Amino acid sequence: MQIIDGKAIAATIKKEIAQQVDEIMAKGGKRPHLAAILVGHDGGSETYVANKVKACEECGFTSTLIRYEDDVTEEQLLAKVQELNNDPDVDGFIVQLPLPRHIDEQKVTEAIDYRKDVDGFHPVNVGRLSIGLPCFLSATPNGIMELLRRYNIDTKGKKCVVLGRSNIVGKPMANLMMQKGTPGDATVTVCHSRTLNIVEECQAADIIIAALGQPHFVKAEMVKEGAVIIDVGTTRVPDSTRKSGFRLCGDVDYENVAPKCSYITPVPGGVGPMTIVSLMKNTLLAATHEIY
Amino acid sequence: MQIIDGKAIAATIKKEIAQQVDEIMAKGGKRPHLAAILVGHDGGSETYVANKVKACEECGFTSTLIRYEDDVTEEQLLAKVQELNNDPDVDGFIVQLPLPRHIDEQKVTEAIDYRKDVDGFHPVNVGRLSIGLPCFLSATPNGIMELLRRYNIDTKGKKCVVLGRSNIVGKPMANLMMQKGTPGDATVTVCHSRTLNIVEECQAADIIIAALGQPHFVKAEMVKEGAVIIDVGTTRVPDSTRKSGFRLCGDVDYENVAPKCSYITPVPGGVGPMTIVSLMKNTLLAATHEIY
Repeated sequence: MQIIDGKAIAATIKKEIAQQVDEIMAKGGKRPHLAAILVGHDGGSETYVANKVKACEECGFTSTLIRYEDDVTEEQLLAKVQELNNDPDVDGFIVQLPLPRHIDEQKVTEAIDYRKDVDGFHPVNVGRLSIGLPCFLSATPNGIMELLRRYNIDTKGKKCVVLGRSNIVGKPMANLMMQKGTPGDATVTVCHSRTLNIVEECQAADIIIAALGQPHFVKAEMVKEGAVIIDVGTTRVPDSTRKSGFRLCGDVDYENVAPKCSYITPVPGGVGPMTIVSLMKNTLLAATHEIY
Repeated sequence: MQIIDGKAIAATIKKEIAQQVDEIMAKGGKRPHLAAILVGHDGGSETYVANKVKACEECGFTSTLIRYEDDVTEEQLLAKVQELNNDPDVDGFIVQLPLPRHIDEQKVTEAIDYRKDVDGFHPVNVGRLSIGLPCFLSATPNGIMELLRRYNIDTKGKKCVVLGRSNIVGKPMANLMMQKGTPGDATVTVCHSRTLNIVEECQAADIIIAALGQPHFVKAEMVKEGAVIIDVGTTRVPDSTRKSGFRLCGDVDYENVAPKCSYITPVPGGVGPMTIVSLMKNTLLAATHEIY
């Protein structure tokens, strides 16, 4: 059993990106610039955005954090999106989700110029991912593809079960895994809350990608000997022994599942760091105009 | 075993559409207008386009057929696409595929205004389908969803195996079947040329949607008793007993598979007529601006 060290791979990729930025600067180019809009003070969102700002520093990017209180209007937010769309210094930007209930998340997402949509949530990028065209790939699925690539994990013809059908993980993950290529060419099954035979599907899987957001959903008896397990779950579970008062809990019962696997990602330190690195890669691609 | 009569359902829907057009006209509205660009003289394409023009007549639409010889340049074709994009009388249009090799099909597809892209091939429509937003749905998958709906076939929690991962059938079909809704909420597996255990996947399926383009690929021994079989295949097989010199052959060994099924679509007369009807529905939606 090998633990997939997302933290180490992410550190390596950030160094690779920083080197590319150095080369751009040496040629007199512009420093890549990622902007982030954060509304309110949700604990998870604060952490994610802080980690993104830190990753920008490590990669040599300029970063701008734009904060609003919870009472920001949709109109104000859309005006800021337009401003960033038109700002030639900003290569890419994100609006940290979730947004307060009075704001239409889909409307805000679609207002972002797809050529600056480094989260890959705009319909143009979602559609191009599905078709197999160059685009800003959704960060978490792309991070997982990168882990499979760097660990030379064979996916061709393998049975891959994706748990969860969300727009930002499950669906794009399924699309990427079924496409021609390496990694890719897998036989993909998407299971979700309505699936009746989820245990049998998992038991037959060579690769399980768990993105349900249900702590310890995947038990040892659901996993085939030698399977590859990718755990996308990051549920905050109360833990009085931690300074923060919580710990992150994956969708996989790691302790009991790990001994049966060929490869497994831990939580934290598996998929999470790769998600942020994918965002950095998209920002670099936006700055160098390699896609659009 | 019940045969799913796509031809009859398609006729019913065309009548429903014609009635809606009558209502639009009675209110002094504009007659829906579909334009089609046909390049060259490919036998299949000629037939498809002729059927589309005929369906427009049945629905009370205006149709325009624009023909080019095989030597049309990409530039000429793109200029015509722009003209149709800007023509306020044309509600929707299609460019019949395949195009000659010297023309970039993807470039032409992306040049079409997504608000007139009634084939649903533009990345914006593909992306919105994946996300679950209103859009012009890809015609064949949408036709299949309509058949499942009109026959009240239960898909929730069912294991649905999609054979084929094409951009115009397999991938959008998988996306629609896994989404929340009725039909939908299925556990979806996509199999393709690289799949190793295709027989086992089919044997476990409650619903098989075959879109490989391989005549009689699905044999009786691959099908579970009581399964629902949707056959998208329409391969032309030489047949000297026919005036045309060929017959259409599905992906399913109908004669031997049908007795085991609860529902099955024949070829021809199953999915084919529904594909054209989906195009008509998209054209009506374009004319009434219900989506964009």
